[in-house]
Amino acid sequence: MRFVKGHGTENDFVILPDPDGVLELTPATVAALCDRRAGIGADGVLRVVRTKVAEAEEAAGVAAFAGASEGFADEAEWFMDYRNADGSIAEMCGNGVRVFARYLVDAGLAAPGEWPVATRAGLRRVTLGATGDVSVDMGPSLVQGTGSAELAGRTYEGLRISMGNPHLACLIAEPVGTLDLTRAPSFDPAVFQDGVNVELFRPVGDRHVEMRVYERGSGETRSCGTGAVATAVAAAGDAMGEWRVTVPGGDVFVTITPTSTHLRGPAILVADGTFR
Amino acid sequence: MRFVKGHGTENDFVILPDPDGVLELTPATVAALCDRRAGIGADGVLRVVRTKVAEAEEAAGVAAFAGASEGFADEAEWFMDYRNADGSIAEMCGNGVRVFARYLVDAGLAAPGEWPVATRAGLRRVTLGATGDVSVDMGPSLVQGTGSAELAGRTYEGLRISMGNPHLACLIAEPVGTLDLTRAPSFDPAVFQDGVNVELFRPVGDRHVEMRVYERGSGETRSCGTGAVATAVAAAGDAMGEWRVTVPGGDVFVTITPTSTHLRGPAILVADGTFR
Repeated sequence: MRFVKGHGTENDFVILPDPDGVLELTPATVAALCDRRAGIGADGVLRVVRTKVAEAEEAAGVAAFAGASEGFADEAEWFMDYRNADGSIAEMCGNGVRVFARYLVDAGLAAPGEWPVATRAGLRRVTLGATGDVSVDMGPSLVQGTGSAELAGRTYEGLRISMGNPHLACLIAEPVGTLDLTRAPSFDPAVFQDGVNVELFRPVGDRHVEMRVYERGSGETRSCGTGAVATAVAAAGDAMGEWRVTVPGGDVFVTITPTSTHLRGPAILVADGTFR
Repeated sequence: MRFVKGHGTENDFVILPDPDGVLELTPATVAALCDRRAGIGADGVLRVVRTKVAEAEEAAGVAAFAGASEGFADEAEWFMDYRNADGSIAEMCGNGVRVFARYLVDAGLAAPGEWPVATRAGLRRVTLGATGDVSVDMGPSLVQGTGSAELAGRTYEGLRISMGNPHLACLIAEPVGTLDLTRAPSFDPAVFQDGVNVELFRPVGDRHVEMRVYERGSGETRSCGTGAVATAVAAAGDAMGEWRVTVPGGDVFVTITPTSTHLRGPAILVADGTFR
Protein backbone atom coordinates (compact mmCIF):
# COMPACT_ATOMS: atom_id res chain seq x y z
CA MET A 1 0.00 0.00 0.00
CA ARG A 2 1.57 3.28 -1.15
CA PHE A 3 1.42 6.19 1.28
CA VAL A 4 2.57 9.76 1.85
CA LYS A 5 3.00 11.15 5.36
CA GLY A 6 2.27 14.82 5.99
CA HIS A 7 1.24 17.28 8.66
CA GLY A 8 -0.25 20.74 9.22
CA THR A 9 1.13 22.33 12.41
CA GLU A 10 1.86 18.79 13.67
CA ASN A 11 -1.64 17.51 13.08
CA ASP A 12 -0.42 14.53 11.05
CA PHE A 13 -1.90 12.25 8.43
CA VAL A 14 -1.22 9.17 6.35
CA ILE A 15 -2.32 9.99 2.80
CA LEU A 16 -3.39 7.02 0.68
CA PRO A 17 -3.54 7.66 -3.08
CA ASP A 18 -6.47 5.56 -4.30
CA PRO A 19 -8.04 7.37 -7.28
CA ASP A 20 -10.16 4.37 -8.29
CA GLY A 21 -11.29 3.48 -4.77
CA VAL A 22 -9.90 -0.05 -4.85
CA LEU A 23 -8.24 -0.19 -1.41
CA GLU A 24 -9.93 -2.32 1.26
CA LEU A 25 -9.75 0.32 3.95
CA THR A 26 -11.23 -1.36 7.03
CA PRO A 27 -11.22 0.30 10.46
CA ALA A 28 -8.57 -2.25 11.49
CA THR A 29 -6.33 -1.23 8.58
CA VAL A 30 -6.73 2.45 9.43
CA ALA A 31 -5.89 1.76 13.08
CA ALA A 32 -2.83 -0.28 12.06
CA LEU A 33 -1.60 2.53 9.78
CA CYS A 34 -2.13 5.15 12.50
CA ASP A 35 -0.49 3.15 15.32
CA ARG A 36 2.47 5.32 16.30
CA ARG A 37 4.74 2.41 17.23
CA ALA A 38 3.58 -0.68 15.36
CA GLY A 39 2.48 1.25 12.24
CA ILE A 40 3.33 4.51 10.48
CA GLY A 41 1.60 6.73 13.00
CA ALA A 42 -0.85 9.59 12.44
CA ASP A 43 -3.89 11.41 13.78
CA GLY A 44 -5.88 10.16 10.81
CA VAL A 45 -5.95 8.82 7.26
CA LEU A 46 -6.75 10.84 4.14
CA ARG A 47 -7.75 8.56 1.29
CA VAL A 48 -7.55 10.32 -2.08
CA VAL A 49 -10.40 9.12 -4.30
CA ARG A 50 -11.95 10.58 -7.43
CA THR A 51 -15.29 12.12 -6.46
CA LYS A 52 -17.13 10.34 -9.26
CA VAL A 53 -15.79 7.00 -7.98
CA ALA A 54 -16.72 7.79 -4.37
CA GLU A 55 -20.23 8.82 -5.38
CA ALA A 56 -20.73 5.70 -7.51
CA GLU A 57 -19.54 3.53 -4.63
CA GLU A 58 -21.85 5.30 -2.22
CA ALA A 59 -24.78 4.89 -4.61
CA ALA A 60 -23.93 1.17 -4.75
CA GLY A 61 -24.18 1.01 -0.94
CA VAL A 62 -20.48 0.59 -0.11
CA ALA A 63 -20.23 1.45 3.59
CA ALA A 64 -16.79 3.05 3.35
CA PHE A 65 -18.24 5.77 1.14
CA ALA A 66 -21.35 6.50 3.19
CA GLY A 67 -22.10 10.20 3.06
CA ALA A 68 -19.96 10.82 -0.01
CA SER A 69 -22.78 11.35 -2.51
CA GLU A 70 -23.80 14.95 -2.81
CA GLY A 71 -23.58 15.42 -6.56
CA PHE A 72 -20.20 17.14 -6.27
CA ALA A 73 -18.42 15.21 -9.01
CA ASP A 74 -18.83 17.97 -11.59
CA GLU A 75 -17.37 20.61 -9.27
CA ALA A 76 -14.71 18.74 -7.31
CA GLU A 77 -12.46 16.16 -8.95
CA TRP A 78 -11.22 14.76 -5.61
CA PHE A 79 -13.02 13.40 -2.57
CA MET A 80 -11.30 13.38 0.84
CA ASP A 81 -12.19 10.13 2.60
CA TYR A 82 -11.10 11.10 6.10
CA ARG A 83 -10.79 8.56 8.92
CA ASN A 84 -9.91 9.07 12.55
CA ALA A 85 -6.97 7.14 13.98
CA ASP A 86 -9.36 4.60 15.52
CA GLY A 87 -10.76 3.79 12.06
CA SER A 88 -14.04 5.64 12.44
CA ILE A 89 -15.31 7.83 9.60
CA ALA A 90 -15.12 11.59 10.09
CA GLU A 91 -16.72 14.37 8.09
CA MET A 92 -14.05 17.04 7.85
CA CYS A 93 -10.72 18.17 9.24
CA GLY A 94 -9.41 21.70 8.65
CA ASN A 95 -5.74 20.75 8.79
CA GLY A 96 -6.41 17.50 6.96
CA VAL A 97 -7.99 19.16 3.93
CA ARG A 98 -5.02 21.54 3.71
CA VAL A 99 -2.56 18.62 3.69
CA PHE A 100 -4.83 16.80 1.22
CA ALA A 101 -4.67 19.77 -1.17
CA ARG A 102 -0.88 20.05 -0.86
CA TYR A 103 -0.59 16.36 -1.73
CA LEU A 104 -2.75 16.80 -4.86
CA VAL A 105 -0.57 19.63 -6.15
CA ASP A 106 2.66 17.87 -5.18
CA ALA A 107 1.58 14.71 -6.99
CA GLY A 108 0.52 16.63 -10.10
CA LEU A 109 -3.14 15.65 -9.59
CA ALA A 110 -4.27 19.28 -9.31
CA ALA A 111 -2.85 22.64 -10.35
CA PRO A 112 -2.00 25.42 -7.90
CA GLY A 113 -4.89 27.86 -7.55
CA GLU A 114 -8.31 27.81 -5.93
CA TRP A 115 -10.66 24.83 -6.22
CA PRO A 116 -13.10 22.80 -4.16
CA VAL A 117 -12.43 19.47 -2.42
CA ALA A 118 -15.39 17.16 -1.83
CA THR A 119 -15.78 16.02 1.80
CA ARG A 120 -18.54 14.35 3.79
CA ALA A 121 -19.31 17.83 5.18
CA GLY A 122 -19.72 19.27 1.67
CA LEU A 123 -17.38 21.19 -0.63
CA ARG A 124 -14.38 22.99 0.88
CA ARG A 125 -12.54 25.53 -1.26
CA VAL A 126 -8.78 25.50 -0.91
CA THR A 127 -6.22 28.05 -2.14
CA LEU A 128 -2.55 27.24 -2.62
CA GLY A 129 0.51 27.95 -4.69
CA ALA A 130 3.11 25.53 -6.04
CA THR A 131 4.71 25.60 -2.58
CA GLY A 132 4.00 27.24 0.80
CA ASP A 133 0.90 27.68 2.91
CA VAL A 134 -2.50 26.25 2.10
CA SER A 135 -5.71 28.12 2.89
CA VAL A 136 -9.18 26.61 3.23
CA ASP A 137 -12.59 28.24 3.43
CA MET A 138 -13.98 26.86 6.70
CA GLY A 139 -17.45 28.37 6.32
CA PRO A 140 -19.17 30.71 8.75
CA SER A 141 -18.86 30.38 12.52
CA LEU A 142 -21.91 30.49 14.75
CA VAL A 143 -21.59 32.12 18.17
CA GLN A 144 -24.23 30.50 20.37
CA GLY A 145 -23.74 32.26 23.69
CA THR A 146 -21.62 31.76 26.77
CA GLY A 147 -20.77 28.57 28.59
CA SER A 148 -18.30 27.06 30.98
CA ALA A 149 -16.22 23.97 31.59
CA GLU A 150 -14.07 22.74 34.44
CA LEU A 151 -10.45 21.71 33.90
CA ALA A 152 -8.02 20.57 36.60
CA GLY A 153 -10.27 21.98 39.33
CA ARG A 154 -10.80 25.39 37.72
CA THR A 155 -13.87 26.73 35.99
CA TYR A 156 -13.34 28.50 32.66
CA GLU A 157 -15.96 30.75 31.12
CA GLY A 158 -16.05 31.28 27.39
CA LEU A 159 -18.03 31.51 24.17
CA ARG A 160 -19.90 28.57 22.73
CA ILE A 161 -19.11 28.55 19.02
CA SER A 162 -20.17 26.05 16.38
CA MET A 163 -17.91 25.36 13.42
CA GLY A 164 -20.08 22.40 12.47
CA ASN A 165 -18.56 20.84 15.57
CA PRO A 166 -18.97 22.35 19.07
CA HIS A 167 -16.37 24.60 20.72
CA LEU A 168 -15.96 26.52 23.94
CA ALA A 169 -13.31 29.23 23.51
CA CYS A 170 -12.16 30.70 26.84
CA LEU A 171 -10.05 33.81 27.33
CA ILE A 172 -7.51 33.34 30.13
CA ALA A 173 -4.98 35.60 31.81
CA GLU A 174 -1.94 33.36 32.22
CA PRO A 175 0.43 31.93 29.59
CA VAL A 176 -1.17 28.82 28.05
CA GLY A 177 2.06 26.89 28.64
CA THR A 178 1.29 26.79 32.35
CA LEU A 179 -2.03 24.92 31.95
CA ASP A 180 -2.65 21.31 32.94
CA LEU A 181 -4.55 19.68 30.06
CA THR A 182 -3.82 16.08 30.95
CA ARG A 183 -7.40 15.31 31.96
CA ALA A 184 -10.70 15.75 30.17
CA PRO A 185 -12.82 18.79 30.99
CA SER A 186 -16.17 18.37 32.71
CA PHE A 187 -19.18 20.40 31.61
CA ASP A 188 -22.97 20.52 31.70
CA PRO A 189 -24.15 17.78 29.32
CA ALA A 190 -27.47 19.56 28.89
CA VAL A 191 -25.59 22.50 27.35
CA PHE A 192 -23.04 20.47 25.38
CA GLN A 193 -25.14 17.53 24.27
CA ASP A 194 -22.55 16.31 21.75
CA GLY A 195 -19.57 17.06 23.98
CA VAL A 196 -17.29 20.01 23.29
CA ASN A 197 -13.77 20.95 22.22
CA VAL A 198 -12.33 23.35 24.78
CA GLU A 199 -9.89 26.08 23.71
CA LEU A 200 -8.01 28.24 26.22
CA PHE A 201 -6.43 31.32 24.70
CA ARG A 202 -4.56 34.49 25.61
CA PRO A 203 -3.74 37.54 23.47
CA VAL A 204 0.02 37.88 23.02
CA GLY A 205 0.19 40.66 20.41
CA ASP A 206 -1.76 42.65 17.87
CA ARG A 207 -4.35 40.26 16.41
CA HIS A 208 -2.25 37.43 17.77
CA VAL A 209 -3.34 34.87 20.37
CA GLU A 210 -1.77 31.72 21.77
CA MET A 211 -4.07 28.75 22.26
CA ARG A 212 -4.18 25.21 23.60
CA VAL A 213 -7.01 22.81 22.95
CA TYR A 214 -8.53 19.72 24.51
CA GLU A 215 -10.26 17.86 21.69
CA ARG A 216 -13.37 15.84 22.31
CA GLY A 217 -12.39 12.18 22.12
CA SER A 218 -8.67 12.82 21.50
CA GLY A 219 -7.28 14.74 24.47
CA GLU A 220 -4.87 17.62 24.04
CA THR A 221 -3.64 17.90 20.46
CA ARG A 222 -0.83 19.91 18.86
CA SER A 223 -3.29 21.74 16.63
CA CYS A 224 -6.99 21.87 15.80
CA GLY A 225 -8.20 23.74 12.72
CA THR A 226 -11.79 24.39 13.78
CA GLY A 227 -10.53 25.23 17.28
CA ALA A 228 -8.17 27.86 15.90
CA VAL A 229 -11.03 29.44 13.95
CA ALA A 230 -13.35 29.39 16.98
CA THR A 231 -10.60 30.99 19.05
CA ALA A 232 -9.99 33.76 16.52
CA VAL A 233 -13.74 34.42 16.33
CA ALA A 234 -13.94 34.67 20.13
CA ALA A 235 -10.92 36.98 20.25
CA ALA A 236 -12.13 39.16 17.36
CA GLY A 237 -15.67 39.82 18.52
CA ASP A 238 -17.29 41.77 15.69
CA ALA A 239 -13.98 42.64 14.02
CA MET A 240 -13.07 41.31 10.58
CA GLY A 241 -9.58 40.55 9.25
CA GLU A 242 -6.70 38.17 9.86
CA TRP A 243 -5.65 36.72 13.24
CA ARG A 244 -2.55 34.74 14.03
CA VAL A 245 -3.17 31.75 16.31
CA THR A 246 -0.10 30.13 17.89
CA VAL A 247 -0.79 26.51 18.76
CA PRO A 248 1.69 23.99 20.22
CA GLY A 249 2.43 22.70 16.69
CA GLY A 250 3.08 26.09 15.08
CA ASP A 251 1.20 29.09 13.72
CA VAL A 252 -2.00 29.24 11.71
CA PHE A 253 -3.79 32.30 10.41
CA VAL A 254 -7.54 32.83 10.53
CA THR A 255 -9.26 35.38 8.31
CA ILE A 256 -12.77 36.40 9.30
CA THR A 257 -15.04 37.89 6.64
CA PRO A 258 -18.70 38.91 6.87
CA THR A 259 -19.76 35.58 5.35
CA SER A 260 -17.10 33.03 6.21
CA THR A 261 -13.81 32.12 7.89
CA HIS A 262 -10.55 30.97 6.32
CA LEU A 263 -7.78 28.91 7.85
CA ARG A 264 -4.26 29.24 6.43
CA GLY A 265 -1.05 27.55 7.48
CA PRO A 266 1.74 25.15 6.58
CA ALA A 267 0.99 21.76 5.02
CA ILE A 268 4.16 19.72 4.88
CA LEU A 269 4.75 16.40 3.11
CA VAL A 270 7.39 14.54 5.11
CA ALA A 271 7.89 11.11 3.59
CA ASP A 272 6.48 8.66 1.11
CA GLY A 273 6.75 4.95 0.77
CA THR A 274 5.09 1.57 1.00
CA PHE A 275 3.24 0.09 3.97
CA ARG A 276 3.84 -3.65 4.18
CA MET B 1 16.97 9.77 2.38
CA ARG B 2 15.81 6.14 2.09
CA PHE B 3 14.40 4.56 5.25
CA VAL B 4 12.73 1.45 6.61
CA LYS B 5 10.47 1.59 9.67
CA GLY B 6 10.39 -1.35 12.05
CA HIS B 7 9.69 -2.34 15.63
CA GLY B 8 10.30 -5.03 18.23
CA THR B 9 7.37 -5.30 20.67
CA GLU B 10 6.53 -1.68 19.80
CA ASN B 11 10.01 -0.36 20.51
CA ASP B 12 10.28 1.33 17.12
CA PHE B 13 13.09 2.47 14.87
CA VAL B 14 13.86 4.29 11.67
CA ILE B 15 16.46 2.20 9.82
CA LEU B 16 18.77 4.12 7.47
CA PRO B 17 20.65 1.98 4.94
CA ASP B 18 24.03 3.70 4.57
CA PRO B 19 26.64 1.02 3.77
CA ASP B 20 29.30 3.54 2.78
CA GLY B 21 28.67 5.95 5.67
CA VAL B 22 27.90 8.93 3.46
CA LEU B 23 24.80 10.30 5.24
CA GLU B 24 25.22 13.52 7.20
CA LEU B 25 23.44 12.24 10.29
CA THR B 26 23.42 15.21 12.65
CA PRO B 27 21.55 15.15 15.98
CA ALA B 28 19.06 17.57 14.41
CA THR B 29 18.42 15.19 11.51
CA VAL B 30 17.90 12.26 13.90
CA ALA B 31 15.50 14.32 16.01
CA ALA B 32 13.57 15.37 12.87
CA LEU B 33 13.29 11.75 11.70
CA CYS B 34 12.12 10.58 15.14
CA ASP B 35 9.57 13.38 15.66
CA ARG B 36 6.27 11.51 15.88
CA ARG B 37 4.19 14.25 14.28
CA ALA B 38 6.46 16.38 12.11
CA GLY B 39 8.72 13.45 11.07
CA ILE B 40 8.46 9.68 10.66
CA GLY B 41 8.48 8.95 14.37
CA ALA B 42 10.53 6.42 16.33
CA ASP B 43 12.30 5.68 19.61
CA GLY B 44 15.62 5.81 17.77
CA VAL B 45 17.55 5.55 14.52
CA LEU B 46 19.54 2.51 13.37
CA ARG B 47 22.06 3.49 10.72
CA VAL B 48 23.33 0.47 8.77
CA VAL B 49 27.02 0.96 7.96
CA ARG B 50 29.74 -1.49 6.91
CA THR B 51 31.97 -2.07 9.95
CA LYS B 52 35.12 -1.42 7.95
CA VAL B 53 33.71 1.96 6.88
CA ALA B 54 32.67 2.86 10.44
CA GLU B 55 36.08 1.93 11.81
CA ALA B 56 37.91 3.89 9.11
CA GLU B 57 35.71 6.92 9.83
CA GLU B 58 36.34 6.58 13.55
CA ALA B 59 40.09 6.31 12.96
CA ALA B 60 39.85 9.51 10.90
CA GLY B 61 38.23 11.27 13.87
CA VAL B 62 34.67 11.57 12.52
CA ALA B 63 32.55 12.34 15.59
CA ALA B 64 29.52 10.37 14.40
CA PHE B 65 31.54 7.16 14.55
CA ALA B 66 33.15 7.74 17.95
CA GLY B 67 33.44 4.42 19.76
CA ALA B 68 32.99 2.31 16.63
CA SER B 69 36.58 1.16 16.29
CA GLU B 70 37.20 -2.09 18.08
CA GLY B 71 38.80 -4.12 15.31
CA PHE B 72 35.54 -5.94 14.59
CA ALA B 73 35.56 -5.55 10.81
CA ASP B 74 36.88 -9.07 10.20
CA GLU B 75 34.18 -10.65 12.35
CA ALA B 76 31.12 -8.47 11.77
CA GLU B 77 30.27 -7.09 8.35
CA TRP B 78 27.72 -4.59 9.70
CA PHE B 79 27.95 -1.88 12.35
CA MET B 80 24.81 -0.65 14.12
CA ASP B 81 25.09 3.11 14.54
CA TYR B 82 22.32 3.58 17.11
CA ARG B 83 20.96 7.03 18.04
CA ASN B 84 18.38 7.96 20.61
CA ALA B 85 15.36 9.96 19.47
CA ASP B 86 16.97 13.17 20.75
CA GLY B 87 19.97 12.62 18.45
CA SER B 88 22.42 11.50 21.11
CA ILE B 89 24.66 8.49 20.47
CA ALA B 90 23.81 5.26 22.33
CA GLU B 91 25.85 2.12 22.74
CA MET B 92 23.34 -0.69 22.35
CA CYS B 93 19.66 -1.51 22.27
CA GLY B 94 18.42 -5.09 22.64
CA ASN B 95 15.26 -4.60 20.58
CA GLY B 96 17.12 -2.36 18.14
CA VAL B 97 19.77 -4.94 17.28
CA ARG B 98 17.03 -7.52 16.65
CA VAL B 99 15.25 -5.19 14.23
CA PHE B 100 18.63 -4.31 12.68
CA ALA B 101 19.30 -8.01 12.01
CA ARG B 102 15.85 -8.57 10.52
CA TYR B 103 16.44 -5.64 8.17
CA LEU B 104 19.79 -7.09 7.00
CA VAL B 105 18.19 -10.44 6.13
CA ASP B 106 15.13 -8.82 4.57
CA ALA B 107 17.32 -6.60 2.38
CA GLY B 108 19.54 -9.50 1.32
CA LEU B 109 22.57 -7.99 3.08
CA ALA B 110 23.00 -11.01 5.37
CA ALA B 111 21.87 -14.64 5.29
CA PRO B 112 19.63 -16.22 7.92
CA GLY B 113 21.69 -17.94 10.62
CA GLU B 114 23.87 -16.80 13.51
CA TRP B 115 26.38 -13.99 13.17
CA PRO B 116 27.72 -11.00 15.10
CA VAL B 117 26.68 -7.36 14.72
CA ALA B 118 29.21 -4.68 15.66
CA THR B 119 27.90 -2.10 18.14
CA ARG B 120 29.51 0.55 20.32
CA ALA B 121 29.10 -1.91 23.21
CA GLY B 122 31.01 -4.61 21.32
CA LEU B 123 29.89 -7.57 19.23
CA ARG B 124 26.36 -8.91 19.67
CA ARG B 125 25.52 -12.32 18.19
CA VAL B 126 22.08 -12.58 16.61
CA THR B 127 20.19 -15.68 15.48
CA LEU B 128 17.33 -15.57 13.00
CA GLY B 129 15.61 -17.44 10.21
CA ALA B 130 14.29 -16.13 6.91
CA THR B 131 11.21 -14.94 8.82
CA GLY B 132 9.99 -14.94 12.42
CA ASP B 133 11.59 -14.09 15.74
CA VAL B 134 15.10 -12.73 16.18
CA SER B 135 17.29 -13.70 19.12
CA VAL B 136 20.29 -11.80 20.44
CA ASP B 137 22.95 -12.78 22.95
CA MET B 138 22.73 -10.02 25.56
CA GLY B 139 25.75 -11.13 27.56
CA PRO B 140 25.79 -12.01 31.24
CA SER B 141 23.74 -10.18 33.83
CA LEU B 142 25.27 -8.99 37.07
CA VAL B 143 23.14 -9.04 40.22
CA GLN B 144 24.56 -6.37 42.51
CA GLY B 145 22.31 -6.65 45.56
CA THR B 146 19.04 -5.14 46.68
CA GLY B 147 17.80 -1.60 46.33
CA SER B 148 14.65 0.49 46.33
CA ALA B 149 12.91 3.28 44.48
CA GLU B 150 9.79 5.32 45.12
CA LEU B 151 7.04 5.62 42.52
CA ALA B 152 3.75 7.47 42.94
CA GLY B 153 4.22 7.63 46.71
CA ARG B 154 5.06 3.94 47.16
CA THR B 155 8.43 2.35 47.89
CA TYR B 156 9.38 -0.68 45.80
CA GLU B 157 12.15 -3.04 46.85
CA GLY B 158 13.96 -5.09 44.25
CA LEU B 159 17.20 -6.40 42.84
CA ARG B 160 19.88 -4.16 41.42
CA ILE B 161 21.01 -5.77 38.17
CA SER B 162 23.49 -4.51 35.61
CA MET B 163 23.04 -5.40 31.95
CA GLY B 164 25.72 -2.88 31.04
CA ASN B 165 23.07 -0.35 32.02
CA PRO B 166 21.56 -0.19 35.53
CA HIS B 167 18.25 -1.82 36.48
CA LEU B 168 16.11 -2.24 39.56
CA ALA B 169 13.71 -5.18 39.08
CA CYS B 170 10.93 -5.25 41.69
CA LEU B 171 8.50 -8.09 42.35
CA ILE B 172 5.00 -6.79 43.06
CA ALA B 173 1.72 -8.41 44.06
CA GLU B 174 -0.85 -6.58 41.96
CA PRO B 175 -1.45 -6.66 38.19
CA VAL B 176 1.02 -4.33 36.49
CA GLY B 177 -1.83 -2.70 34.55
CA THR B 178 -2.94 -0.96 37.74
CA LEU B 179 0.33 0.94 38.28
CA ASP B 180 0.81 4.66 37.82
CA LEU B 181 4.05 5.15 35.85
CA THR B 182 3.39 8.68 34.68
CA ARG B 183 6.09 10.23 36.87
CA ALA B 184 9.77 9.45 37.28
CA PRO B 185 10.86 7.30 40.21
CA SER B 186 12.97 8.79 42.99
CA PHE B 187 15.87 6.85 44.46
CA ASP B 188 19.08 7.22 46.42
CA PRO B 189 21.59 8.83 44.02
CA ALA B 190 24.47 7.41 46.06
CA VAL B 191 23.23 3.91 45.19
CA PHE B 192 22.22 4.63 41.57
CA GLN B 193 24.92 7.05 40.52
CA ASP B 194 24.05 6.79 36.81
CA GLY B 195 20.30 6.69 37.38
CA VAL B 196 18.33 3.49 36.99
CA ASN B 197 15.68 1.79 34.84
CA VAL B 198 12.91 0.53 37.12
CA GLU B 199 11.00 -2.67 36.24
CA LEU B 200 7.91 -3.78 38.16
CA PHE B 201 6.94 -7.38 37.52
CA ARG B 202 4.51 -10.07 38.65
CA PRO B 203 4.49 -13.80 37.89
CA VAL B 204 1.39 -14.74 35.87
CA GLY B 205 2.19 -18.36 34.94
CA ASP B 206 4.90 -20.98 34.79
CA ARG B 207 8.14 -19.14 33.93
CA HIS B 208 5.98 -16.25 32.75
CA VAL B 209 5.95 -12.74 34.20
CA GLU B 210 4.27 -9.50 33.20
CA MET B 211 6.36 -6.36 33.44
CA ARG B 212 6.22 -2.60 33.03
CA VAL B 213 9.26 -0.37 32.91
CA TYR B 214 10.17 3.24 33.53
CA GLU B 215 13.26 3.93 31.44
CA ARG B 216 15.89 6.37 32.57
CA GLY B 217 15.56 9.46 30.42
CA SER B 218 12.56 8.20 28.43
CA GLY B 219 9.68 7.56 30.82
CA GLU B 220 7.47 4.53 30.52
CA THR B 221 8.10 2.61 27.28
CA ARG B 222 6.23 -0.22 25.56
CA SER B 223 9.23 -2.51 25.81
CA CYS B 224 12.84 -2.53 27.02
CA GLY B 225 15.15 -5.39 26.04
CA THR B 226 17.68 -5.09 28.86
CA GLY B 227 14.79 -4.52 31.29
CA ALA B 228 13.10 -7.74 30.17
CA VAL B 229 16.35 -9.65 30.73
CA ALA B 230 16.91 -8.06 34.16
CA THR B 231 13.32 -8.95 35.09
CA ALA B 232 13.71 -12.59 34.01
CA VAL B 233 16.97 -12.82 35.96
CA ALA B 234 15.28 -11.42 39.08
CA ALA B 235 12.34 -13.80 38.68
CA ALA B 236 14.53 -16.83 37.98
CA GLY B 237 16.97 -16.53 40.87
CA ASP B 238 19.54 -19.29 40.29
CA ALA B 239 17.37 -21.17 37.78
CA MET B 240 18.41 -21.50 34.14
CA GLY B 241 16.12 -21.79 31.11
CA GLU B 242 13.60 -19.71 29.17
CA TRP B 243 11.22 -17.14 30.62
CA ARG B 244 8.36 -15.36 28.91
CA VAL B 245 8.13 -11.65 29.70
CA THR B 246 4.89 -9.90 28.74
CA VAL B 247 5.48 -6.19 28.22
CA PRO B 248 2.90 -3.60 27.09
CA GLY B 249 4.13 -4.00 23.48
CA GLY B 250 3.96 -7.81 23.36
CA ASP B 251 5.91 -10.86 24.48
CA VAL B 252 9.65 -11.45 24.55
CA PHE B 253 11.48 -14.56 25.71
CA VAL B 254 14.61 -14.53 27.84
CA THR B 255 16.89 -17.56 28.05
CA ILE B 256 19.33 -17.66 30.95
CA THR B 257 22.42 -19.84 30.63
CA PRO B 258 25.35 -20.22 33.02
CA THR B 259 27.40 -17.75 31.00
CA SER B 260 24.97 -15.39 29.25
CA THR B 261 21.42 -14.26 28.57
CA HIS B 262 19.49 -14.28 25.30
CA LEU B 263 16.57 -12.10 24.25
CA ARG B 264 14.17 -13.40 21.60
CA GLY B 265 11.08 -11.81 20.14
CA PRO B 266 9.37 -10.35 17.10
CA ALA B 267 11.15 -7.87 14.84
CA ILE B 268 8.72 -6.45 12.32
CA LEU B 269 9.45 -4.26 9.29
CA VAL B 270 6.41 -2.07 8.76
CA ALA B 271 7.11 0.33 5.91
CA ASP B 272 9.84 1.67 3.69
CA GLY B 273 10.19 4.85 1.76
CA THR B 274 11.91 8.18 1.32
CA PHE B 275 12.23 10.96 3.90
CA ARG B 276 12.03 14.33 2.18
